[in-house]
Amino acid sequence: MEILLATGNAHKKLELSEIMPQHTFLTPKDLGINFDHEETGLTFLDNAQGKALALQKITGKPVLADDSGICVPALGGAPGIYSARYGSNPGEPDLESPQRNALLLKNMEGKEDRSAFFVCAMTLVFGEFRHYTIQETIEGVLTTEPAGVGGFGYDPLFFLPDYGKTIAEIPAEEKNRISHRGRAGSKMAELLKDL
Amino acid sequence: MEILLATGNAHKKLELSEIMPQHTFLTPKDLGINFDHEETGLTFLDNAQGKALALQKITGKPVLADDSGICVPALGGAPGIYSARYGSNPGEPDLESPQRNALLLKNMEGKEDRSAFFVCAMTLVFGEFRHYTIQETIEGVLTTEPAGVGGFGYDPLFFLPDYGKTIAEIPAEEKNRISHRGRAGSKMAELLKDL
Repeated sequence: MEILLATGNAHKKLELSEIMPQHTFLTPKDLGINFDHEETGLTFLDNAQGKALALQKITGKPVLADDSGICVPALGGAPGIYSARYGSNPGEPDLESPQRNALLLKNMEGKEDRSAFFVCAMTLVFGEFRHYTIQETIEGVLTTEPAGVGGFGYDPLFFLPDYGKTIAEIPAEEKNRISHRGRAGSKMAELLKDL
Repeated sequence: MEILLATGNAHKKLELSEIMPQHTFLTPKDLGINFDHEETGLTFLDNAQGKALALQKITGKPVLADDSGICVPALGGAPGIYSARYGSNPGEPDLESPQRNALLLKNMEGKEDRSAFFVCAMTLVFGEFRHYTIQETIEGVLTTEPAGVGGFGYDPLFFLPDYGKTIAEIPAEEKNRISHRGRAGSKMAELLKDL
């Protein structure tokens, strides 16, 4: 199925293409659409559903939106839905990923509880009243310095005790099998099989 | 799996048990819990997710919530999320189903477009950050008088052109295969297979 992505994030597009290889993903840009949706939700679910519904309304096409981030209990759940904008002020461009990671590590200095979890809310909309949302999560522990070059975003800080490695150090196929986005995406693919 | 339902509606419990026979459904009452959640959402999705999250928070158990209703374009989408309360004033008890049906037919007098659709938003929550939401729909046409004794709610008014019958006139197994709730429930059952 041809699915329009409500994202301009090339990393997410690549991962989704790997997780759901039976589908073809387009971005708004591929259709010549300038989709600049302001994320006003207070939860991953709100944001994913809001983006997907907005783009479906504009295009009439099946739309997939992914809202994801890292939540750190010792920081009261931050960065959470602000993961991509962590450390930047309103109106300013987002920090680059290594700067955000450095900021997160700095904010964790002296914290005893270094547990963290990734969350991915994924919504597929076929029409105003047919949609599926899957929210999945994966638990880990924050490292004290980045390790690994795979994945993107906070992956080099996210240590998986079962693997003895960060998510950025395990193969993409393995990440896509166990990650928040991988779990959500493979469940979504199952739902699409019957359509 | 033992799943707690965020509803006191016996009809919904029965239908869900038929649609997902591999699972056991309990109500808050079965656990001695008085769950009286005020529905403040503006969409089926909001309401289903709100109810499910609230009851999961109280109990820690896997919770399923279903928010559903009938939408009539000629009435601007009414009764919509107010389907169960249609025609009753705040603070008053809800009308009985036959009274609501009579009111809907009365409000449709003289309308040319008698199309209608049922919507079911179903949310399953396993923990604060793992949940699945499926929203499904079925399209039909409003009759001018009730027909059939199966199902519940607005079913006797909901005519399916492909069957030449109302949903209340077709066997429960068939309703459960094609209805908004049946479609959402069978997709949900698919997602639960792997857990």
